[in-house]
Amino acid sequence: VDELTIIAAAANLPRVGGGVVLGIGDDGAVVTPAQGYEVLVTDTLAEGTHFKRGWTSPEDLGWKTLAVNVSDLAAMGASPRHGLLTLALPVGIDDSWVHAFMLGLGEASHHWRLPIVGGDTVRAPAIVITVAATGQTAHPLRRAGAEPDWLLAVTGTIGGAAAGLSALAHGRSSPAEAIRRWRRPPARLEAGLALAASGLPVAVTDCSDGLVVSCDLLAGALGYELTVASLPIDPAARAATTDPQQAETWALFGGEDYELVLAFPAEKEEAVRQAVAPLPLTVVGRLLPSAGGWLVRGQWRGPLDAGGSFRHF
Amino acid sequence: VDELTIIAAAANLPRVGGGVVLGIGDDGAVVTPAQGYEVLVTDTLAEGTHFKRGWTSPEDLGWKTLAVNVSDLAAMGASPRHGLLTLALPVGIDDSWVHAFMLGLGEASHHWRLPIVGGDTVRAPAIVITVAATGQTAHPLRRAGAEPDWLLAVTGTIGGAAAGLSALAHGRSSPAEAIRRWRRPPARLEAGLALAASGLPVAVTDCSDGLVVSCDLLAGALGYELTVASLPIDPAARAATTDPQQAETWALFGGEDYELVLAFPAEKEEAVRQAVAPLPLTVVGRLLPSAGGWLVRGQWRGPLDAGGSFRHF
Repeated sequence: VDELTIIAAAANLPRVGGGVVLGIGDDGAVVTPAQGYEVLVTDTLAEGTHFKRGWTSPEDLGWKTLAVNVSDLAAMGASPRHGLLTLALPVGIDDSWVHAFMLGLGEASHHWRLPIVGGDTVRAPAIVITVAATGQTAHPLRRAGAEPDWLLAVTGTIGGAAAGLSALAHGRSSPAEAIRRWRRPPARLEAGLALAASGLPVAVTDCSDGLVVSCDLLAGALGYELTVASLPIDPAARAATTDPQQAETWALFGGEDYELVLAFPAEKEEAVRQAVAPLPLTVVGRLLPSAGGWLVRGQWRGPLDAGGSFRHF
Repeated sequence: VDELTIIAAAANLPRVGGGVVLGIGDDGAVVTPAQGYEVLVTDTLAEGTHFKRGWTSPEDLGWKTLAVNVSDLAAMGASPRHGLLTLALPVGIDDSWVHAFMLGLGEASHHWRLPIVGGDTVRAPAIVITVAATGQTAHPLRRAGAEPDWLLAVTGTIGGAAAGLSALAHGRSSPAEAIRRWRRPPARLEAGLALAASGLPVAVTDCSDGLVVSCDLLAGALGYELTVASLPIDPAARAATTDPQQAETWALFGGEDYELVLAFPAEKEEAVRQAVAPLPLTVVGRLLPSAGGWLVRGQWRGPLDAGGSFRHF
């Protein structure tokens, strides 16, 4: 990790945080143990798959690298503890690019109090960035546990990140808000921590791969229906297209909004709403006893076509 | 992690190990907290940098992916707890390749009792594999702390992995033992744990990047000298070349042997030897008060040329 030591020092990454006994610079980091349960997450951004260099600044990519991992911790109801960073970089990448990347990462690291305590830097044909992070929680949130007739709900707004990505892929620089949503996603950490602390019966995941994929995960062997009219579509997604169905498609299948998707009993709706406040909560559907996803659009009700979701393989 | 769930299930990876509350299949894994100190390590193997597909079988690559992380835990004196696996894979890679990779990884996972509890699978232009692992120890071993006149020593034998890599790079299939050493490195976990438990004054690192780099790390602001005649050169490295200096170069600069490199006061030599037994321990040099590395070959003594070491950038 020699190169990482240099890079981290140059960017003034937070070197010491809560519980760090020994940070970057040895064969491993040494930290105090977690309290309650320990949560382990990892998420990767790969050039050509998750981003192209022209679509984002290195600062924003650094931010996003950490944010997507914090989003996983949020979906587990866990507060961030420590992160490991692996940078696979092509030969010839600018020092200034790496420096800017680390500045963005450092900013997110400060923001969510997740110090980077170690990592690895290797040469590779393309940029592949992996963060692994630990967290802790007294009450882990799980995807499993939803029951028929539970409501499905999502925090904040959806569809904005996909609209931003679409704009970038078509060489456009607007809507700026949608592009910013894709480049600098949120992570709904406060909401996740509040849900964990509430003890409410709730199944939770984040919507990294789109609302429909998240609902598939929460439903498990059950089914569900989503009501199009209720989707909290990001105004920036609506502004990005003249085709209302396109905005709906982004909201349903687009991914990368990093909101939380929840399932809970109908009678707990108000308590869940209070837990995630001031973040808005929107009920978008409900769970059904039999497998399969359904979409309700006005008087029309038909099977969900998940073909719009992103699949890695 | 949908794909990973499938892959892991197919390969019968150990799904539940010590302290695993919730394994693969949620936004994060949930485990019980570490006892004593928690240790965090990560190590990456990238196609084209660390290996070519023709040089190793996927089974051996799976083994090595885990072994290099266990080696880091060993160098910290930490017993393995839990691992996260990130597989960045090119489109079109055979299912059978992935299955075989997971078998080798699973074998190492069983061997060192390091269950994989989560991960990520992404598409990338080349294979980039990252494992992040946690461990625990009551007494972390550190690189820092060596003092002038402390002895430098290495466990086992060195130079074999570099000889094996050289053979593969030249299209040769022998010496088989050297090639095997490169493909399936050891991890000196028992020795690391015994050193940690001993409480002996010792500075430790593994020799992933070669003996000289390890000695640089242990020396810090100090200097050191290495005696060529004392190097425990792997017989397979000697067998791989008719040039004795080539075997020495592999042993000094080659890397990937994953032995432990230690510094300790001369009067503790016997105690250190007993701690790492039955693994052999060979004293190869000593620390000097002033910075700089020196090589002693018979009557000749000159500055170490570290130009033979592998540098990622």
